[in-house]
Amino acid sequence: LAEVREAADRAGRYFPLSLPSEGSCQIGGNLATNAGGVGVLAYGSARQLTLGLEVVLADGRVLSGLTALKKDNTGYDLRDLFIGSEGTLGVITAAVLKLFPKPREMATAFVALSELSGALALFNLAAERAGANLTAFEFMPRIALSFALAHIAGTRDPLPAAHPWYVLIETSSARADGSAERLLLTLLAAASSAGIIGDATLAHSLAQARDFWRLRDSFSAAQKGEGGSIKNDVSVPVAAIPAFVARADALIARLCPGARPLAFGHFGDGNVHYNISQPIGGDRAGFLARWEEVTGAINALVLQFGGSISAEHGIGQLKRAELIRAKAPLALEVMRAIKDALDPKGILNPGKVL
Amino acid sequence: LAEVREAADRAGRYFPLSLPSEGSCQIGGNLATNAGGVGVLAYGSARQLTLGLEVVLADGRVLSGLTALKKDNTGYDLRDLFIGSEGTLGVITAAVLKLFPKPREMATAFVALSELSGALALFNLAAERAGANLTAFEFMPRIALSFALAHIAGTRDPLPAAHPWYVLIETSSARADGSAERLLLTLLAAASSAGIIGDATLAHSLAQARDFWRLRDSFSAAQKGEGGSIKNDVSVPVAAIPAFVARADALIARLCPGARPLAFGHFGDGNVHYNISQPIGGDRAGFLARWEEVTGAINALVLQFGGSISAEHGIGQLKRAELIRAKAPLALEVMRAIKDALDPKGILNPGKVL
Repeated sequence: LAEVREAADRAGRYFPLSLPSEGSCQIGGNLATNAGGVGVLAYGSARQLTLGLEVVLADGRVLSGLTALKKDNTGYDLRDLFIGSEGTLGVITAAVLKLFPKPREMATAFVALSELSGALALFNLAAERAGANLTAFEFMPRIALSFALAHIAGTRDPLPAAHPWYVLIETSSARADGSAERLLLTLLAAASSAGIIGDATLAHSLAQARDFWRLRDSFSAAQKGEGGSIKNDVSVPVAAIPAFVARADALIARLCPGARPLAFGHFGDGNVHYNISQPIGGDRAGFLARWEEVTGAINALVLQFGGSISAEHGIGQLKRAELIRAKAPLALEVMRAIKDALDPKGILNPGKVL
Repeated sequence: LAEVREAADRAGRYFPLSLPSEGSCQIGGNLATNAGGVGVLAYGSARQLTLGLEVVLADGRVLSGLTALKKDNTGYDLRDLFIGSEGTLGVITAAVLKLFPKPREMATAFVALSELSGALALFNLAAERAGANLTAFEFMPRIALSFALAHIAGTRDPLPAAHPWYVLIETSSARADGSAERLLLTLLAAASSAGIIGDATLAHSLAQARDFWRLRDSFSAAQKGEGGSIKNDVSVPVAAIPAFVARADALIARLCPGARPLAFGHFGDGNVHYNISQPIGGDRAGFLARWEEVTGAINALVLQFGGSISAEHGIGQLKRAELIRAKAPLALEVMRAIKDALDPKGILNPGKVL
């Protein structure tokens, strides 16, 4: 993936997909799982970033679809069927990816909020004012920031005081005329006047912007310093995030007293990484042994909100049993019919997804 | 479709899909064909504008997927399979559509070019400078404009002199601060300095912008005043449009001397509506009788350019035989396997697509 981004960069273009775990992933794997990340808000997930695919089918024949077309309405959408099928319908061996004009400017702000509902008000304001120039909107609670500050070397709190919630906002511009920063400043001024935000700081250098992003990107690593954690990658409608997180926190307080939930992620996509760190000084193995029970309870809540039990990480083996509980039986039946049609012997990535 | 746009408008939001033939189409039909149009450049086609679907399957059972989620990676992408399947895999009976913040400003320019390769240079410049604020980029030849001026009441030439090619450019902004117009003016100034454009005029009122769009939208109607026409809805990679059109024009001059091709459409999507009007004073029925021969020759050329024989209108009955010639046999086989799996009795929209 890094190679793809570097190649795009050499061509003076931009490829927006970036994942913290990308070191271990081939590009085909990122497509097979319809990978997401922080760039989805403005550029879409892997499905929207792919023009053509080459796929090896179950019988070994090669389906060549390495087209560079933006529009092609000739029959069923096979590309989007293989993307996200996690290798169970075919093996992606090559792809034509969509590149974008490189943004000439980016502006980044770290914004403090007294409550999570403020993030929704701020997102609506940002979407309205910045439109497609809003290229990231990530939310995180104070506890996530504290974990990063405690366990990741070289991090520091961007703001002088502690606040319950934070949002990392990025605006981009195709013009090198200061418009990305002006847009962000106007937005923050409007949010401040409306009483939505507590405090905010703008990155005044690329290094500072990188520091803000480093905080955001380090939560998974930082959580390792706090013992075991049970992870959920879920989505709900954007407007429901604050209510969902409040209900989930109450649920965890009841179910695992002392456990410490970190609700963070891609606010504008409705994508919450709801990762729960074990109680301080508690038994790691004992906590992790409750994985299925805890994720099951969170998933049940997700479904009450009309959400998805896997927003961007897919199903794999881990969520296979959960998928059967969460998905409409008829949808599973249709998926199974497609699987049987394309892989009648069940030899492609057996034991995954279905 | 008009109702959807009006409902969005009442909610202070924006739904970008708009089609000249929409009067006769239900929203389900627009989704079943993955409808496109002038807004695809910035907002995507029907597939990108849909969040959830309700579909009646071949056995009458209802697949309920009316989700409002932006991200959901739980199994195969059934939504995008039903969209664009033209009713052959299931009947779309309800949908959740994506709305956008309403642009606060739009600026529209009618630009003259001495050759079509100038449109490519102008598009690259516009994409680079305007990024996501470029919301339309339509191209058309002089002959299309003449047909509109001759046959559509109340139209007038936006420019004092005639030019071989034209582009209709629209920029949009989420801010009501004159930025859409400033962006377009800066872009035109840069294009003029670079010698890309011959002349250009900016719409100075909403009425003038509507007049520019009315010209663009009237070509199909205007062609009726010039006798029979053979229509092609094809796509090629964007950078190949000028070479493709030159080769297609030469082909038609050889194949049907006197016939008058109009190559127009969605430049930024690589989508060329290559509609050929019969020779002046020629035999209408005789010309139309050559439909298959002429479209077959154009499609063969399209395939040489790595293009698609149906960019946005789908296959239906008309292009079914052509699809078999144009598509890789293995891709057709995979589509057929999916069709057989979901509609084993072949009762859904028989005789279409496959």
